[in-house]
Amino acid sequence: MSVDKVIRERRSIRKFLKKDVPKDLVLKILDAARWAPSSKNSQPWEFIIIRKEEIKKKLAKLARYGWFIAEAPVVIAVVTDPQKSYAHLIDGACAVQNLMLAAWELGLGTCWIGTMDREKAKEVLGIPENLHLLTVVPLGYPEETPMPPSRKPLEKIVYYENYGRKDL
Amino acid sequence: MSVDKVIRERRSIRKFLKKDVPKDLVLKILDAARWAPSSKNSQPWEFIIIRKEEIKKKLAKLARYGWFIAEAPVVIAVVTDPQKSYAHLIDGACAVQNLMLAAWELGLGTCWIGTMDREKAKEVLGIPENLHLLTVVPLGYPEETPMPPSRKPLEKIVYYENYGRKDL
Repeated sequence: MSVDKVIRERRSIRKFLKKDVPKDLVLKILDAARWAPSSKNSQPWEFIIIRKEEIKKKLAKLARYGWFIAEAPVVIAVVTDPQKSYAHLIDGACAVQNLMLAAWELGLGTCWIGTMDREKAKEVLGIPENLHLLTVVPLGYPEETPMPPSRKPLEKIVYYENYGRKDL
Repeated sequence: MSVDKVIRERRSIRKFLKKDVPKDLVLKILDAARWAPSSKNSQPWEFIIIRKEEIKKKLAKLARYGWFIAEAPVVIAVVTDPQKSYAHLIDGACAVQNLMLAAWELGLGTCWIGTMDREKAKEVLGIPENLHLLTVVPLGYPEETPMPPSRKPLEKIVYYENYGRKDL
């Protein structure tokens, strides 16, 4: 599937089929994630593949908008290292965008979970104090077909040469 | 081109052909950028398309590793709004990763410029005080074929169920 098509058609997925995602597909997606660029090629990311019900349930309780974490067959926790890159949030976000696009190409849906009690979630996952839990990403075969979310028109967010200048 | 192929083969490009990039291609790439997900669909991003030599030269001088900014036919400045999204760096990074992948599919190279004197660059571009200049991205047809950068092996950065746990 073309990049352009996947970028435009990918949706955040919050309902998943009760169908397993094979390990080799999960690893293929994480392999795509690690090809993101990063500040000075620091690659400040690590991933935890979570399948255990008990852990997923705990994470779901810690994420304000993440009730559906418990219902995804797989959850990927993305950990970044502020000591390895001052831009670890940005580097990590590029890797996760890769992950979400690669997943969609394989027929798999994801959703970025941003709001959670990070300190408690780090405890649940045994993540050391000095590392950052960027996001937990539920992953699975979609059981919904969400409508495209609204988008600001391109001409409202593009300027020429100078901020606010509308055309040449 | 498949997402997987573009993700793996995309390289940061610092040498560009002296060949123009048509406006419709630039807009197509920015259109892909704005389909990134964002916190509460805030879409906290705006873009400035820069072609004027004088402005590119000023930006090149303000970016420590960005001497080649002046030599790209187009430079895209990416502006995010911290008031629209507490996660504006992350949302913006997802949009830029889309931008870089969409560009590569069209045969165009980019490079994330992160280190620069942001306050002065914002002045050059007329960006209001309350907004953040996330990156300036040179864009053009590649005049180099960089080797793939080194990558940490997947098995060193993937854990199972718990941070540090190596397999099931």
